[in-house]
Order: sequence, then C-alpha cells, then structure tokens
Amino acid sequence: MFIACEASFEELYPEETLKLKMRGNDMGRKTLLKGIGEEALIKGLAAKFPSGHPRVIKGIGDDAAVIAEAGGKALLTTTDILIEGTHFRREYTDAYLLGRKALSISLSDIAAMGGIPLFFLTSIALPPDTEKGFLDGLYRGLSDVAFDFGALLIGGNTARSGKVMVATTVLGEASAEEVVYRGGAREGDDIYVTGATGVSALGLKILKGRGLGVLRKKTRAGRAALKHLDPTPRVEAGRALATGRLATAMMDISDGLALDLKRMCEESGTGAVIKVDRLPVADELRGGQATHGEILDLIVSGGEDYELLFTARGRDSGRIASLSRRLSLPMTAIGKVTEKSGGIRFVHDDGTELEIRRPGFEHF
Amino acid sequence: MFIACEASFEELYPEETLKLKMRGNDMGRKTLLKGIGEEALIKGLAAKFPSGHPRVIKGIGDDAAVIAEAGGKALLTTTDILIEGTHFRREYTDAYLLGRKALSISLSDIAAMGGIPLFFLTSIALPPDTEKGFLDGLYRGLSDVAFDFGALLIGGNTARSGKVMVATTVLGEASAEEVVYRGGAREGDDIYVTGATGVSALGLKILKGRGLGVLRKKTRAGRAALKHLDPTPRVEAGRALATGRLATAMMDISDGLALDLKRMCEESGTGAVIKVDRLPVADELRGGQATHGEILDLIVSGGEDYELLFTARGRDSGRIASLSRRLSLPMTAIGKVTEKSGGIRFVHDDGTELEIRRPGFEHF
Repeated sequence: MFIACEASFEELYPEETLKLKMRGNDMGRKTLLKGIGEEALIKGLAAKFPSGHPRVIKGIGDDAAVIAEAGGKALLTTTDILIEGTHFRREYTDAYLLGRKALSISLSDIAAMGGIPLFFLTSIALPPDTEKGFLDGLYRGLSDVAFDFGALLIGGNTARSGKVMVATTVLGEASAEEVVYRGGAREGDDIYVTGATGVSALGLKILKGRGLGVLRKKTRAGRAALKHLDPTPRVEAGRALATGRLATAMMDISDGLALDLKRMCEESGTGAVIKVDRLPVADELRGGQATHGEILDLIVSGGEDYELLFTARGRDSGRIASLSRRLSLPMTAIGKVTEKSGGIRFVHDDGTELEIRRPGFEHF
Repeated sequence: MFIACEASFEELYPEETLKLKMRGNDMGRKTLLKGIGEEALIKGLAAKFPSGHPRVIKGIGDDAAVIAEAGGKALLTTTDILIEGTHFRREYTDAYLLGRKALSISLSDIAAMGGIPLFFLTSIALPPDTEKGFLDGLYRGLSDVAFDFGALLIGGNTARSGKVMVATTVLGEASAEEVVYRGGAREGDDIYVTGATGVSALGLKILKGRGLGVLRKKTRAGRAALKHLDPTPRVEAGRALATGRLATAMMDISDGLALDLKRMCEESGTGAVIKVDRLPVADELRGGQATHGEILDLIVSGGEDYELLFTARGRDSGRIASLSRRLSLPMTAIGKVTEKSGGIRFVHDDGTELEIRRPGFEHF
C-alpha cells in the first residue's frame, strides 16, 4: 500500500524494524555466494515472492515469463545481462558483436517459448572514457539484430560504470495455447537439439588464445569464435515448432546441454537417456588438436550455443525432419524422455555410460 | 529475417562488411562519451532504431514506453539500473535499502505515466565473495516494495561481477486514454510538484560525510538520508492524477527539477515560469548550516527525489488540493506553462531571475 510522505519514516521504520532489516549487511554469519550455486540463488529469489497472480501463466522458472493478455494472447518477457569481465572481455569481443549478442541471447529466450519478439529495452553502462565509436558499434549491433528479428527498441537508459555492461529486456507474444514450456516433456518423447552444441565453448577457448584476429579468416577456428560472439537466436525454428504443435517442451541451451537438459527434466518430472553417439558434432569441432574426450566434453557441457533443446512425440518425427529441411537447420533426435526414476543418463551405443563431471556453467 | 545456421557466417559477414562494422572498436577518432551528455546518448540510441510500430503509442522519450493492448488497455514498461560506485556506494547504503530503491525508481516511472504496476523482472550482479546475507537483504528490500505496490516478480537472473549491480524492468498497465505523457503541457497550465525536492541530494551529502549511522536517529539529517536511500514512488498520486484527468503532463523528478522541467517543456513545445519563492522547502532542508543559496540549489538541481512534476488546467486547482489532502501528500503549484519563446525562467517575487548554473545530474 501507498504510504503518504509525511508519515513514511516512522511508519516504515520503527527503530527495531530498521535494525533487524539492516542486519543483512553486517551480521556475523558469512555464507558466501560462491558456495551456493546460481540455481539455488534464483530459487531463493522466487521463494521470497508470492506466486499465483491470476494473469501470470508462468513466472520464474522458464526461459521467459508468460502473462495472459486479452484475446487469448500471452505476453512473453525475459531479461539478460552481459558484464565485462564476467560474460566477455574487451580484448576478445567487439562493440558491434557485443551489441548483437546482448539482444540475441534474450531473443533466444523468446524463441524457446515459441514466441514472436516485438519490443526490447536496454540499459547500457559504460566507463566515461569510452570512445564514442564503441557506443556507435554497440548501437549498430543492437539495431541490426533488432531489424533481423523485427524487435523494436522502446526504452533504454545509459549510466556510467567502471566496466561495460549491457542489459536487455525483450517483450514477445504468442497465442497462450501455443506457448511451449520446459515442463511439457512426457515419457517416450524424443529429445532433439537444433544445430550443434559445443561450438561456442570452443570459440571462447580460441578467442582466449588467439584474440579477435581469428575472426578475419573463415577457418573452423574463425567460425567457432564467431558462434561464441554472435550466436543466432533460433526464433524462426522455435516459432515453427510452437505453431506446428511439434514441441512438447522447449528451452534454449545457454549453460550447456547436460545442465539445461537436467533443468528440463526437473520441470517435466521426467528422466532422460541421451544417445551420446548420436549427438551432432559440428564441423568446427573436427580436425583440430582436441581429443575425442575433449570434444565430447564441449558438446555436453559447453555453454552459450543458444540452440534449442526440445522434445516431441515420436509420431511427429517426419514433420520435424521436413521443418529442419525447410529451415536448413539440423534438428537431431539425440535421445528419449524416460520416467523420473531413470535419472539422466548419457549412454554410448556399446552400452557404456558417459559420466558428466561438469554439467555446465553456473555463475556462483 | 531468420538466416539458417549453415549459411549465416558467409551471409552475415562478407569480409568487407565485417571489417567495416568492426571499426567501431579501434578506429582513430577518439570522441569520449563524457563530453557528449546522457540526453544526446539516448537520442542517438533512439535515432538508430525505426519508430512508428502500429502498437507503440510511445517509445523512447517518456518515463515509460506505452504499448497498445487489446481492449483499450496500454502496457507500460520501463527499465532502470543501479550500479555500485555510480549510483551508490556500499559504505553508505545497505542491501535492504538498495533492493527497495532499485524497484522504487522503476515504479516511479510507472507512477509518472499514471499506471498501475503489475510485474517486474530483475537482474542482479554480485561479486562472488558477497555474503549470503547481503543477497537476502536485497531480496527482502525488493519484495517489501513489490508487496507494498502490488508488483509481482516474474523473471530474473543473477550473474557474477566485480561490483554490485541491480537492474529492474517493471511492467504496468492503464487504460490507453488515461496515460499521461510529458508532452501534454499547454500554455496557461499550472505547474505542480508533489512533496518537496532537494531532500535526496541533501541526504546524499549527509551520507557521504557521516555514513549510514545517521539513519539510526530520526533527526532531519536521518530523514534526508533515508529519502535518498529509500525514495517513495508516488504510485497512488500518479494514478489518481491520471484517472481523475487532472494532469495534462507528468513525469518523475529523477535528475533535478530544472533539468526535468526542461525535458517536459521540450516534449510539450512550451516554456515555463517557476515562482522560486513558491517552491516547497522540506523541513529536512531547514535549520542546518546551509545558506539560502545552497538550499535553493538543492531544491532546483538536486536529483533523485522521485517526486512527480505535473501540469494541470487552472480550473482543476480545487480538485488537486482535495486530492493532496486525501493522500496527505503536498501538491504545490510552483509556476505556469508559457509559450515556447518565453524559455524556462525561475523568477523571484521581486522580479529578479534565478540563474540555473547546474540544471541537474547527467551521467556523461
């Protein structure tokens, strides 16, 4: 409730309440975030807030929030942030590509719900000694991706900071009944992935070693680096999978196949068996110095590919194959949804199991 | 348009295009952002993007974007960010109050359009050695304000960073015909301000000198510091001014009365005369060591009060007075809208003019 100006100090802050509430900052208990895990942090945040608003079809816990609109429509919204030193380094990114990626990763979340991107907002923080050309590049990157996917900038702000930071919030739309959630996978469904995973993680390794110059040649290394710096949100594929009622569950792969599959299975209340030898291996991963084990590790645990992970009924395999051809985008069946008690297993054709040591990227 | 995976590298990046686009990062021209001004930066951003989408009633350039929804409703959305070292310092803020402020400043933008806050998303970046208690405090601050104003958390993410950063995006709603814009002021309208300005800027000065401890006593200094750390978004007032069709133009005062009034006049195509001696002087500004000139400077140019600046027809003064009493929130007539050629003038009762040297806060 609104509390009027004159009374707010006393009403809001009886001395005891204030002391209690302020303890968060300086109390003795010293649990550090790095021991907790990002998953737990987000769940902790969600738990602090009530749920069950009549218009919220899905709040926290999927790629985007889903809000009921009039006329059977659903508003989709998601927010993301790229921070210098955490998500990128200026030595091996570029203002233009940074602008592209900042918007693409949020568009990817809209794609993963089966939605159409409509609008976006952005907050940009920059050190005051940034060159104007850097900001121009950033704008150009944002606007090129916005144009490609039909998203319109409707709000933004700029602020000074020590490090470059770009936050984006995208609003999209779909019919409420078309929206595809993480929790829709059912036992017996096939599990698919678009494109191939692991390329972005390889690209990051290459960029760390060789810097941005690697982009200037259309080698495998250059393409892998570009996949890391400029992922393509699978908007058309996500939309087609939703409107065709093909995907029973869907999400984008941002933190690695294994970790994101685990999230999908948790939401769906299922297990999964992945056929390791069916996992698509991108051309970029072949022919280098990496061992078979290293390549597999990239495919299973490498993050930031922004491909779609989805499940579908067996009877729809033909329609999915035909969609894949139409979009010139591989959609590979990589396993099956199982019952929850089966857990999540990565199995070779010879029956041996792949042990996932490092399922994917978590910030804390 | 969507470009399929296999073809994207060559299609998107013919060698020449790539070179051209990447120049933003390393070209010789060295215009630094700090010489440009935040206003120009935002306008530059807006200019890079097309406008005129059929559903966008107002894009960049007001407190919040306004999107047409079915049934005559308008979706309002705004984004804000608080960055350690820029917007706050840990020495003189507190996790709980930081959480409150991060949400309040975005709610203030919804209030300034006359909307009802509904949902919000938040991105939180924290150093990995942050104590869990800090995050708990932040959550509690966000959730307390969310509860007070009926906003529901629907999305968020956490990331690691060197400095604490909290970004919020709020979604609100109003009837499309109720929404109040910055550009609606007309010659002859009265200019009003809710509450009083300058207190937050004074509070910041006090916090810099005396630290957080000043909050523990209900002195003038403590209340000023709290106004800086925990501004109250004028949601109920903004809503009442909109539904009662009282405000012809409205915005929140985030960067100082003089600068924000200038923005309102630019959008409205008007000038303004402010009666300096009618400007409300908050109790917190009285009785200290500050000179009359210093106090006036705080009132006119001090930012972050998050009070509402609005204009109204003269015939509505009685209804505004009665609304002000009902909400126990002062709404003071401080001047008149004039024609554009009159410029913006701050005039004393004796006819002398106040020169505004430093109109308000800009980041760059």
